[in-house]
Amino acid sequence: MKFETDPIVTERIKKIGKKVTDEILTGEPPTVNLPVRASSNVHYNKQEGLLYLGNSMSSRSFLNFAHTRKFMQTMLIASKCKELIEKSKTASIRELYYELKHNISGTKENTFEGQDESDPLIEDLETMTDSLREQLHLKADSSGILFGKLIIEDMGDRIDCSKLGKSGLAIPSIVDDYKFLKCDADYVLVVETKAMVDRLVEEKFHLKNNAILVGLGGQAARGARRLIKLLNERLKLPVYVFTDGDPWGYYIYSVVKTGSMNLAYESKRLATPQCRFLGMTMKDIDHFGLQKVTEKLKDVDKKRIKQLLSYEWFNKPQWIKELKSMLSKDARIEQQALASKSLEFVAREYLPGKIAGKDFID
Amino acid sequence: MKFETDPIVTERIKKIGKKVTDEILTGEPPTVNLPVRASSNVHYNKQEGLLYLGNSMSSRSFLNFAHTRKFMQTMLIASKCKELIEKSKTASIRELYYELKHNISGTKENTFEGQDESDPLIEDLETMTDSLREQLHLKADSSGILFGKLIIEDMGDRIDCSKLGKSGLAIPSIVDDYKFLKCDADYVLVVETKAMVDRLVEEKFHLKNNAILVGLGGQAARGARRLIKLLNERLKLPVYVFTDGDPWGYYIYSVVKTGSMNLAYESKRLATPQCRFLGMTMKDIDHFGLQKVTEKLKDVDKKRIKQLLSYEWFNKPQWIKELKSMLSKDARIEQQALASKSLEFVAREYLPGKIAGKDFID
Repeated sequence: MKFETDPIVTERIKKIGKKVTDEILTGEPPTVNLPVRASSNVHYNKQEGLLYLGNSMSSRSFLNFAHTRKFMQTMLIASKCKELIEKSKTASIRELYYELKHNISGTKENTFEGQDESDPLIEDLETMTDSLREQLHLKADSSGILFGKLIIEDMGDRIDCSKLGKSGLAIPSIVDDYKFLKCDADYVLVVETKAMVDRLVEEKFHLKNNAILVGLGGQAARGARRLIKLLNERLKLPVYVFTDGDPWGYYIYSVVKTGSMNLAYESKRLATPQCRFLGMTMKDIDHFGLQKVTEKLKDVDKKRIKQLLSYEWFNKPQWIKELKSMLSKDARIEQQALASKSLEFVAREYLPGKIAGKDFID
Repeated sequence: MKFETDPIVTERIKKIGKKVTDEILTGEPPTVNLPVRASSNVHYNKQEGLLYLGNSMSSRSFLNFAHTRKFMQTMLIASKCKELIEKSKTASIRELYYELKHNISGTKENTFEGQDESDPLIEDLETMTDSLREQLHLKADSSGILFGKLIIEDMGDRIDCSKLGKSGLAIPSIVDDYKFLKCDADYVLVVETKAMVDRLVEEKFHLKNNAILVGLGGQAARGARRLIKLLNERLKLPVYVFTDGDPWGYYIYSVVKTGSMNLAYESKRLATPQCRFLGMTMKDIDHFGLQKVTEKLKDVDKKRIKQLLSYEWFNKPQWIKELKSMLSKDARIEQQALASKSLEFVAREYLPGKIAGKDFID
């Protein structure tokens, strides 16, 4: 696979290598510098609505005994990514680990003992080269499904996503090479559960309402997040997010919108700050008479609600109200609880009403 | 959605209802009879290579106080499934729960308190009507991905599964209505991890080798199992299974081949006894020099290996050898460990060699 960014990323990797070899030749200690990826260095940029890494930097030096192993591993990973780009290949992060795991000749030591050693260094290389791992030709686990009036070119194949029956397109981990050939959709509806997507497809919601449906199947995978971003950015489609009415659903929304703390260095490429939250809300419970199909909060739910209340990006009147109402009602509500009205209710009344009335939370 | 079996299944549900109403009219206690679904009533049919439910029956009587609630719930579920079939609708098992959850008028009691009450009764209704839940128009969670030279008709759409780029077709939970319009594939390769499917797609393995790739993403979902069965039965394609070399991978294979203990009553419709195991095997470790990329067994692995050794359907010389060798080597090996040879190795050498040499375990 080839990406537009290949030459840029290769240059950035080469630059790291050149610095190190120059240092070796001039007798200086070989060193790499990289941004600190701890939560202490994660900041919320209110204006852009994105999580960012701050400016704290650390360095990793070959001659510092505590850094030597990690330095060696960083070089191996950088070198392998450069090779992947040059060979137009991609690898899963697990394959990368296995490709690089070998004996260091003359020693009893292995280059890597577990994937827990290589994964964080991939994140390091991403920050060092200011590139997504996908641009380093590495793949994360994929998950997610897509339906709608959108024609995509993927590896030379022309895929009409409105002609995939009830099966749908599996969203891969790398979508940067997708070409959007034609789009007759008016907006993107991001849905937490695949079962709800099944419901909407059965009701032909996507075709009747010109919606692109993106089903996440829980927390959004990187490929799905990037795809939502691209649909918003390249096709200028509004994005609405539809999750369960609980702190886990709300956090899924916030990751799609603002980015995640773990991957704050990638928010700019993965997050869609323009997206809006559609439901389920606490107001829905009273408005639609759903009291009988709520569930009581568990202790972990309550703890999580309090965490969300402490996050700066939830510090908005509507979200504070929503989260506090969840606590005072002692209630959470699932998307599929709408079936208690009727199977068709979500597609015929709930979603069209919310969208027509612009009944969103930002 | 309409299925061929709709009239038959409706008749079977009606028969249950007629028995109960007849009993009410004649003053007898309303009762339903159903097969026992406990492991004590699960048998392995060696000749057919399938797990089956035995002949033990139990009955559920409305006038037996211990049965009353379950009896009422069974009637609600049967009635709702009949309605779904008549309306050509399908529902997820979670939606079914929400659709049926309501107050019983004149009491403080709800029909259902949790989905853990409705799920087992769905399984009861499946055995009582000798039907898959999909034939009752109920959907399980879906998971799985498909690529290959196969053209499917799904809800009127014609889907060419060889023209889906690196994205692939998401396998839905209901596949009985698929029409196989054209197939230029020679066999089905069932793969445990989606990451390995990504690898094979990047190498164009499916196109070069005329293979249909079915990626499971862990344990096989019902939709994927049914699809494998249909590909084998209707298109007469041989099926090879490629999993990690560990007890969890081997059990995934055995579920695809023989059925699962939980769902023994459905083996006949979900299992593919003709399928064959391709790898990873313990022999592969020595044969391909993979000692450096194995992992030591954990206690849970060892315990699981001993469980498999106690199952009748693993009581075959090759499997006993394989499982005992795993214990004596104290090693497990993942599919992706083949990347230690080279990224292309699995597609260019490992799989073609195994298939050409018929190097399988049954």
